[in-house]
Amino acid sequence: MFSERFDQLVQALRILPSVGPKSAQRMALHLIMKNKQGALALSEALSDAADHIHECSICHSLTENEVCDICLSQDRDDTLLCVVESPADVMAIEQSGSFRGKYHVLGGHLSPLDGIGPEEVGIPALVQRLAEGQVAEVILATNATVEGQATAHYLVEATRHLNLKMTRIAQGVPQGGELEYVDSHTLSQAVHNRMQMK
Amino acid sequence: MFSERFDQLVQALRILPSVGPKSAQRMALHLIMKNKQGALALSEALSDAADHIHECSICHSLTENEVCDICLSQDRDDTLLCVVESPADVMAIEQSGSFRGKYHVLGGHLSPLDGIGPEEVGIPALVQRLAEGQVAEVILATNATVEGQATAHYLVEATRHLNLKMTRIAQGVPQGGELEYVDSHTLSQAVHNRMQMK
Repeated sequence: MFSERFDQLVQALRILPSVGPKSAQRMALHLIMKNKQGALALSEALSDAADHIHECSICHSLTENEVCDICLSQDRDDTLLCVVESPADVMAIEQSGSFRGKYHVLGGHLSPLDGIGPEEVGIPALVQRLAEGQVAEVILATNATVEGQATAHYLVEATRHLNLKMTRIAQGVPQGGELEYVDSHTLSQAVHNRMQMK
Repeated sequence: MFSERFDQLVQALRILPSVGPKSAQRMALHLIMKNKQGALALSEALSDAADHIHECSICHSLTENEVCDICLSQDRDDTLLCVVESPADVMAIEQSGSFRGKYHVLGGHLSPLDGIGPEEVGIPALVQRLAEGQVAEVILATNATVEGQATAHYLVEATRHLNLKMTRIAQGVPQGGELEYVDSHTLSQAVHNRMQMK
């Protein structure tokens, strides 16, 4: 609208998740009119990050080095491996502070209809990693979706020949959840997986 | 979380309007994992735009040149001047296709409590522009907020000595508006400003 470069900026902002044409326009105007310094800093942070951040060669999470800090850490339990779908899940679990083992990122979930089989999410490589024998327990922390559940079940089958404890993160009523508003599938899981208190 | 540069990118994304910590994380992950090309393109578009786009020296809208395309245009009516608060408003009116005159961008509205007086929104310069005599009608298209109304009224007073037609964009029920859901101030304006049909 105002100039070629303005339109290019609006277009480029559209690649951000859940940013439509109106938001992109608003963002571009905000940056150009109110925060050129911020725009330049963002520009640099973007090219810096894109050039230097890539997959960890061991766990497939993100790192600037060959191997990520979590994989390198001496303080974390090597016998506990948490399998997740994406680096975002690693971040979520780390922020919960509930886990001190290592991770393995699949990079997705099984979805045969989309042509995503065990090879595509690196399950053979994971099975090989587990066969090395260092891991004693695998915590399956794929999403509680149909695909995530299927992926977890597939992993249990694919590692049946190994002497491994396999666990699945609990499903139930979330913190602050009011039973009245919890969906019936979750509630039936919560009743089924009830825990003894006394 | 994953690395210094990842955190810097999340931080830099926070300058975008209505992007909180969670969205910034999601954006950073999306860019790094799914669209590094897009991230680099966005980086370039940002620095390009920040370096080249600035205020038009006549109307104070945005341009890459000394004077913007609208001010330079021979096809637009020089006798009609539309006064708006921001370049975003120029964009909105242009997209409505309802106006073929020229613009003047105030860059804000009067707000005495915030120390924004006539000088700060360039009203003396606008009055001088109007005194040159080329403009026959000024359309006051400041926002329909208290401040926008006050700014419009101030402009009417400030140009009382000039031989100018001053108009204000209409206020009323918006397209698709159902009376039941329209606020009472808007409805009272709509009744007060009713138009004869026959």
